[in-house]
Amino acid sequence: MAPDSFTGWMTAIQQRTEAALDSLLPDPARAPAALHEAMRYATLGGGKRVRALLAHAAGELTGAKPEHLDRIAAALEMIHAYSLVHDDMPAMDNDTLRRGKPTCHIAFDEATALLAGDALQTLAFEVIADPMDGIAPSVQLAMVSRLARASGHAGMCGGQGIDLSSVGKALSQPELEYMHLLKTGALIRASVVLGAMGGRTLATDEAASLDHFAKRMGLAFQVVDDVLDCEADTATLGKTAGKDAANDKPTYVSLMGLGQARQFARDLRDDAFAALQRFGDDASRLRALADYIVARSF
Amino acid sequence: MAPDSFTGWMTAIQQRTEAALDSLLPDPARAPAALHEAMRYATLGGGKRVRALLAHAAGELTGAKPEHLDRIAAALEMIHAYSLVHDDMPAMDNDTLRRGKPTCHIAFDEATALLAGDALQTLAFEVIADPMDGIAPSVQLAMVSRLARASGHAGMCGGQGIDLSSVGKALSQPELEYMHLLKTGALIRASVVLGAMGGRTLATDEAASLDHFAKRMGLAFQVVDDVLDCEADTATLGKTAGKDAANDKPTYVSLMGLGQARQFARDLRDDAFAALQRFGDDASRLRALADYIVARSF
Repeated sequence: MAPDSFTGWMTAIQQRTEAALDSLLPDPARAPAALHEAMRYATLGGGKRVRALLAHAAGELTGAKPEHLDRIAAALEMIHAYSLVHDDMPAMDNDTLRRGKPTCHIAFDEATALLAGDALQTLAFEVIADPMDGIAPSVQLAMVSRLARASGHAGMCGGQGIDLSSVGKALSQPELEYMHLLKTGALIRASVVLGAMGGRTLATDEAASLDHFAKRMGLAFQVVDDVLDCEADTATLGKTAGKDAANDKPTYVSLMGLGQARQFARDLRDDAFAALQRFGDDASRLRALADYIVARSF
Repeated sequence: MAPDSFTGWMTAIQQRTEAALDSLLPDPARAPAALHEAMRYATLGGGKRVRALLAHAAGELTGAKPEHLDRIAAALEMIHAYSLVHDDMPAMDNDTLRRGKPTCHIAFDEATALLAGDALQTLAFEVIADPMDGIAPSVQLAMVSRLARASGHAGMCGGQGIDLSSVGKALSQPELEYMHLLKTGALIRASVVLGAMGGRTLATDEAASLDHFAKRMGLAFQVVDDVLDCEADTATLGKTAGKDAANDKPTYVSLMGLGQARQFARDLRDDAFAALQRFGDDASRLRALADYIVARSF
């Protein structure tokens, strides 16, 4: 696939995702206006939409309808957005800058940010449970389950909980991997799986291969994030750079050094690629996307 | 129905609900322990379980299986518990006492309370989406939708948002009703509807009657709560009494006075009862429960 066509595809998916979110988020003209505005502020107009891109790329592999992928992608991005709003709050990371804008509790207030995060999480489940024409209700119910497991105490929230309890502690690489597997990895992985569930049913061994890809990419994504957090300045990153080190939080860079962290991201990508071999050209988009995600750290 | 048998039923449902929650909440021995402990602390061992009682009573009317009602009730109580954890936080009501115990952010810390609330909401959706033997996936998907709509920006969170923006303002009775319809009423109403969905499918006009009952009881419940908040001392109530007045928040008592608020609760109950007439004896449990809820304010 030529780089141009990939870039064009990426921009198109980002635009579709923005449009889907815009239509699914509540009307800011309706009461309670502050809540609705905060939900929109936290979700629209920013982010690389990695979860949406993964869902669409995986959905291409199984022939899912783009309009269904829009809903799945929107639900994933709402979960991601809510987690950022709550993570940025003073009780957690106390951050003031996100995607180049003041964080939600700065732009509004803490009570509104707390509530907007809550309502975004709820809306994600509402969106993914809304009947999708041509998808069996049993499959959609499995999507709800999968999204919940990826987001909750055994997924994203669990990883955040381990993160909270590990500040100032020296974690081993397996401990760090487990934390990230939950904190960022679970939702990244679910993005691939949910996107694929929108199309033809995969055979058990196909689903296992795709899940292996998704799991490795979930981890690679976090390693790349640590590398970028260490390297970039705040302006480039659009969020406060170096804050993990400043907060004495363990990262892949603090654990293995910059060079080795970069190499680790490449190794994960190669392992992820190997799992896609059986899908041939059907997985071209996923391969290009995986390459793009990891190349950010080169 | 004799009062004794109702009291016995109520105790039995409260115990079943506690047992269901205990088995569905994450193991406190597993990492992240603080998150899991906080989720359990906020949910177990307290509360009247009004939402669980309503779900079971409505499920009796449609012949739902008790084990399915346990899951539905647990999901409802988790949503309720998460909302209390977040509402009690310093950014919102800044309350220190709930159900006779220190609030979650006092017993743990703010970050853990924030995260525990988030993970409780997620778990509610995980629990209600888990396949229930004998319930069609399409019905279960409708349960997820209904729970989400009752909890989100057009339900509980929306009501909380209106509440936040109305502190210090004089609301009219219609405005106050709309706020409570969303803030407390939506989840109370969903409790009845979800419980009923666990059994035989109701005809459209039957469903409309039951929903009318549920809607009136949702409002009655809030009126009763305002009466109790005004009357009771902190020890009896198990939470800080009189805080709505202290926070200059509008209540039914501040709007219409104590005597009229009590009468309003009775009128709502009578209207709710009228909607149950068509169900005859099948609705005995719902009637007894409605009576119990409103009688708390006499």
